[in-house]
Amino acid sequence: MRNFWLNMPTEIFFGRNQIEVLSKQLKKDGVKSVLLAYGHGSIKRSGLYDKIVSILNENSVKITELAGIDPNPRITSVAKGAELCRENKVDLIIAAGAGSVIDCCKAIAAARYYSGDPWDFFIRKTSVKKALPICAILTLAATGSEMNGGCVLTNEETQEKLPMGSVRLKPKFSILDPTYTFTLPKNQTVAGIADITSHVFEQYFSYPEAALQDYMSEAVLKTVIENAPIVLEEPENYDARANIMWAGTVALNGLLELGKDGDWATHMIEHELSAKYDITHGVGLAILTPSWMKKVLDSRNCSKFAKYGRNVWGITEKDDMKAALEAIEKTADFFKSLGLPQKLSEIGIDDSKFEEMAASALKNSRIGTFKELNKEDIVEIYRMSL
Amino acid sequence: MRNFWLNMPTEIFFGRNQIEVLSKQLKKDGVKSVLLAYGHGSIKRSGLYDKIVSILNENSVKITELAGIDPNPRITSVAKGAELCRENKVDLIIAAGAGSVIDCCKAIAAARYYSGDPWDFFIRKTSVKKALPICAILTLAATGSEMNGGCVLTNEETQEKLPMGSVRLKPKFSILDPTYTFTLPKNQTVAGIADITSHVFEQYFSYPEAALQDYMSEAVLKTVIENAPIVLEEPENYDARANIMWAGTVALNGLLELGKDGDWATHMIEHELSAKYDITHGVGLAILTPSWMKKVLDSRNCSKFAKYGRNVWGITEKDDMKAALEAIEKTADFFKSLGLPQKLSEIGIDDSKFEEMAASALKNSRIGTFKELNKEDIVEIYRMSL
Repeated sequence: MRNFWLNMPTEIFFGRNQIEVLSKQLKKDGVKSVLLAYGHGSIKRSGLYDKIVSILNENSVKITELAGIDPNPRITSVAKGAELCRENKVDLIIAAGAGSVIDCCKAIAAARYYSGDPWDFFIRKTSVKKALPICAILTLAATGSEMNGGCVLTNEETQEKLPMGSVRLKPKFSILDPTYTFTLPKNQTVAGIADITSHVFEQYFSYPEAALQDYMSEAVLKTVIENAPIVLEEPENYDARANIMWAGTVALNGLLELGKDGDWATHMIEHELSAKYDITHGVGLAILTPSWMKKVLDSRNCSKFAKYGRNVWGITEKDDMKAALEAIEKTADFFKSLGLPQKLSEIGIDDSKFEEMAASALKNSRIGTFKELNKEDIVEIYRMSL
Repeated sequence: MRNFWLNMPTEIFFGRNQIEVLSKQLKKDGVKSVLLAYGHGSIKRSGLYDKIVSILNENSVKITELAGIDPNPRITSVAKGAELCRENKVDLIIAAGAGSVIDCCKAIAAARYYSGDPWDFFIRKTSVKKALPICAILTLAATGSEMNGGCVLTNEETQEKLPMGSVRLKPKFSILDPTYTFTLPKNQTVAGIADITSHVFEQYFSYPEAALQDYMSEAVLKTVIENAPIVLEEPENYDARANIMWAGTVALNGLLELGKDGDWATHMIEHELSAKYDITHGVGLAILTPSWMKKVLDSRNCSKFAKYGRNVWGITEKDDMKAALEAIEKTADFFKSLGLPQKLSEIGIDDSKFEEMAASALKNSRIGTFKELNKEDIVEIYRMSL
């Protein structure tokens, strides 16, 4: 295990009706003016928007709205949001929605105090020195953004999708009410589940070994795998929704990666797909993950895949390589059982940009720590997923 | 899962030589005067004391010492420590040692701002309104006190040992260097391991069910069970010590109990033993735990013990009750394999105070949520452990 620093400042209010804490939190921090950011209106249809607005009004808090944040949030929303924060002396950003909304708000929180182009944070031209506090009100279990300091934004102009992060961007507090996920369309629920499992894989398949972190990773996977069919069958099963939601948070709040160097190759090569084709991130991950597994599997690391298969899927095969292959098959079957697309061709992607995307993925950093990938490797993973 | 609030403000600096961060932390917070609290000198023998003092001197920080804190820390140390803090305008308490030292410092941190008897916090006559910040420098993996807000103190006069807690008592930051545990006497290492496993049991055997929390509990248990024999065989095996140390923190930093009502019966009835006989807490727990398990096991809850046995010990028995009994046996065998005493009689305790201790345990609260225990039940658990 490597040395690590753990800092989890985000307070979590988890459960039914936890939105009621918002009033107390606003009073505690003396909030006077908020930016209320959301996506394309699902929070209006569900009644959450009215609830938030009514609490803000009761507390005489000025509301500035930023609506229409996209599933792959655009850097153009960030400059606009930052300007709104400056103009309206915003002292808290409320991000009500999925990870995309929260991610966009993180970039806004940082850009509020930066006079240059917000994309500078993503191309490492600057770093986050100061940021507005954020309250995340989560409506989809997926990205884990509600308890971490990372965000991923898309630059339409350059067709890039890049991550950045800072401990200063961890939400001040997040409200996680599983009932908000009861009415999600099935395709969003399952894409979220694919995202959660991928986050675990990125950290589990990494070095050096860390016993508890790995067992905790398996714990998250088992929780998701057992509860996924329940939420598909009974979308309003509270406990199953709660288990998935909390698993999504733990999957990426830092605990699973402590003392390890996460791999993150699948995410990096998926971001190219989302950037070029604007597909759902979780769908891209579900398609690429089994291909990545097959591509990196070798005689040196097959014991890790075998461990995953035995501990998570109950595989009893004694031979490591055979158990590893079985585990990869189980993984693909799981995504299939959720009704997720299995191939890039199913979502209208052909091989015309594979070379370009592989080159782009490698432009800003090396890819893969569990096994480093070169351009040919990445193209092959895309091709295996076709 | 019940609603929960998660608040983990303690920053963790984990790994070799992390003591080096102390200087930066002192500067960041503008610390001018510390209370340096420790036990009976092991930090002097190991060189840790000199290291801390040298960093404090380099930063021109005034040092007030409180030495000699006992393994079952006494409330009498608290009043003395609080007075020292007031006299010397202490702005940070450094607790260098095991959980006992950290626990004592938490009570001091609260008592610093309370003019009454510090025992009032423990008999619920008052609550913690304000507290001094604490830095914990851990030397024994056991209590988890380094990342939670709880403490347990002994009142010699009344022969009581009681817990209290507040989010305000969570250490501001904690330094966890596994190398500090390399030179521990074996009996301390194994008592710590028993304490860690007991913390998990208290939360695992509880209602309502919470999938991820339970799988994470199993993760901690598996980590401890696999690494315990390694640290006994190779006391300076860094990874094994690191795995045990981090498991000890996660076992009681709140994550395993989220949305659940922990049982804590074994702890409550053990505290009576420590209070009356001043035995090592972990030793008491190791002796009582299998008896508690056997006493509460019934046809309604045997599936939970069976789940524990199957997931942690790999028991393949299909019948729940048989698997449960096998799991309890495995648990007792594990403690035995660490060289821990198996019976109260081995540590000089007879049945003369069983009735008195059972009555005392029930004086301040009901005991047990997984199965509530009455006085006769508690006496029987003591008797089964004789």
